[in-house]
Amino acid sequence: MPPSWHITPVDQAVRSRIQDRINQKTKPLGALGQLENLAMQIALIQHSDAVSSNIQIPNDYLQINRPRMLVFAADHGIAAEGVSIAPSAVTQQMVLNFLAGGAAINCFCRSAGLPLVIIDAGIAEEIQPQPNDLINQRVAAGTHNFAQQAAMSKSELETALNLGSTLAQHHINKGSNLLAFGEMGIGNSSSAAALLAALSQAPLTQCVGRGTGINDAQLTKKIILIQQALARISSTEPLDLLAEVGGFEIAQICGAMLATAAAKKIILVDGFIVTAAAMLAVALHPAARDYMIFAHQSLESGHQLMLQRLGAQPLLNLDLRLGEGTGAALALPLLNAAICFYNDMATFASAGVKV
Amino acid sequence: MPPSWHITPVDQAVRSRIQDRINQKTKPLGALGQLENLAMQIALIQHSDAVSSNIQIPNDYLQINRPRMLVFAADHGIAAEGVSIAPSAVTQQMVLNFLAGGAAINCFCRSAGLPLVIIDAGIAEEIQPQPNDLINQRVAAGTHNFAQQAAMSKSELETALNLGSTLAQHHINKGSNLLAFGEMGIGNSSSAAALLAALSQAPLTQCVGRGTGINDAQLTKKIILIQQALARISSTEPLDLLAEVGGFEIAQICGAMLATAAAKKIILVDGFIVTAAAMLAVALHPAARDYMIFAHQSLESGHQLMLQRLGAQPLLNLDLRLGEGTGAALALPLLNAAICFYNDMATFASAGVKV
Repeated sequence: MPPSWHITPVDQAVRSRIQDRINQKTKPLGALGQLENLAMQIALIQHSDAVSSNIQIPNDYLQINRPRMLVFAADHGIAAEGVSIAPSAVTQQMVLNFLAGGAAINCFCRSAGLPLVIIDAGIAEEIQPQPNDLINQRVAAGTHNFAQQAAMSKSELETALNLGSTLAQHHINKGSNLLAFGEMGIGNSSSAAALLAALSQAPLTQCVGRGTGINDAQLTKKIILIQQALARISSTEPLDLLAEVGGFEIAQICGAMLATAAAKKIILVDGFIVTAAAMLAVALHPAARDYMIFAHQSLESGHQLMLQRLGAQPLLNLDLRLGEGTGAALALPLLNAAICFYNDMATFASAGVKV
Repeated sequence: MPPSWHITPVDQAVRSRIQDRINQKTKPLGALGQLENLAMQIALIQHSDAVSSNIQIPNDYLQINRPRMLVFAADHGIAAEGVSIAPSAVTQQMVLNFLAGGAAINCFCRSAGLPLVIIDAGIAEEIQPQPNDLINQRVAAGTHNFAQQAAMSKSELETALNLGSTLAQHHINKGSNLLAFGEMGIGNSSSAAALLAALSQAPLTQCVGRGTGINDAQLTKKIILIQQALARISSTEPLDLLAEVGGFEIAQICGAMLATAAAKKIILVDGFIVTAAAMLAVALHPAARDYMIFAHQSLESGHQLMLQRLGAQPLLNLDLRLGEGTGAALALPLLNAAICFYNDMATFASAGVKV
């Protein structure tokens, strides 16, 4: 049995009260555009959290407490087919780069004041000796090649969902009310594309992209292999799809997102692969969508389709195609700004402005 | 005689060296999208500054020193025609709100760690007693109604350009290498639209928008009044246009931008009104464009046209229509992130990543 989560939607009854508060700020109605939607969503989440936890939010103040970026790394059997620009060994090399502080996600997390947590969710070759600051949540030494067989067993899937869920719960217990998600895994854009195609029934050519930069021949091969895999699968159940064509990092992120939504905390979603995990989480528990903030739209074809299906308006559109959680880290300052205006901006009455 | 500035383009000879540095970072080529362009521009500016100042940039490190947000406020005679959602008195009320720390720009500047400087460039009614933290650069008590006569005299224009230029130079002398620009002035979207139409020769319906939210009748009136003003003007000289249909805040921002470009420092451009000042600065000195970073694209119709004509790709697109400098303050963390990756990200060689 997979783990279960009790996820309830945010409390829409307070929407008009929040909107009133935003409308009284010293600015024309709606003039802060998407930042107003962002403040609204954070306020809905934190109000709902406060009510269910029986906590009073003093004067309706919003805040981000103990934010964390959780980056899950794992390898993919499909990478052996040459559908990526790099071999599987690069997953481990990049995890070492994360641990040494030298990757893009390290820079952007430092820049945003967002502590980074690195998780080995199942990279091909275990790092020896085991670094202290690497969370060992290895399900196996990478998935099977999903072009030929299921990526993982049902039991491995349950393990992965549970490990992700428990880690998110751990950070929430320590006081985090925002968890951002990132990933590393050579081959994982193939998994994400296959999941998108299976969940959306959209044509494969719309779902499959160039990842971090494959050529035309590799793209054609990638499409054919995914087609082959999907032809094998009869189920439309999200967990069946996740076991068939997913990855250990995607499954752990999905479990972590569901635990975060169950606890009524903010889920900050990165790019194509993390959004695939978000689609699965929403397919399993539609109410989880209320807790998700979508950081950016990447260059990967298919990501826009995912965002459309989730009814998401991403905050940034910077033509990123890197993953790791980079888009989510870059978006965090916008959440801080939305909270700052919601908490601190004067009203027309308090400022004596008469429009 | 208007003041003169000696502005030279950035040194393109180092472009390939900067590109090599970016390409060696542990990420697929180009995977950081617009942030790579941003790092390139900052590196070109700071390299050129270092060369002309005969300073060595240690190890090519980029940095933002003593950033400041300069918000220039002024009133507009055209506001008497009812082409805004608010009366001119709101300019002064909002300046008092800025000084009290309660406006959106205060929140976003605090959130971004960006100190705010407020300048009275010519609001209708002087604030009494004069607050210590308000820079008094009043040219006059608002412009004339440009639908009927020139907004300002040539001598007022020169005064405004000089005051803006001197203030920018003051902050640069104190160590600032980035100046962001914002504005407040009821009626100033009419000035900006008229300047855009005159500089671009684009149809008025493409240049004139709803500002912070006027209705159809007001929009029609705004277009007719601008048409009337433009029919009066025979010159195509940027400074003549600025005197005819500009504003004291727009003129001071234009002067400040030219001084910033002359000193080879970063100009962070906000929305529609500040971009009108940027268009004028570039029309006067095309090389000033090299020093301008465009923070965002606002909802104001006409802003996109300005950005296109300047060949600018804005960093954010959040449907803002507030001005004040809000978009520029929100974009600053992206500049910090670009600098962080350029300075600190590991190379493939240093991290031992073999793609």
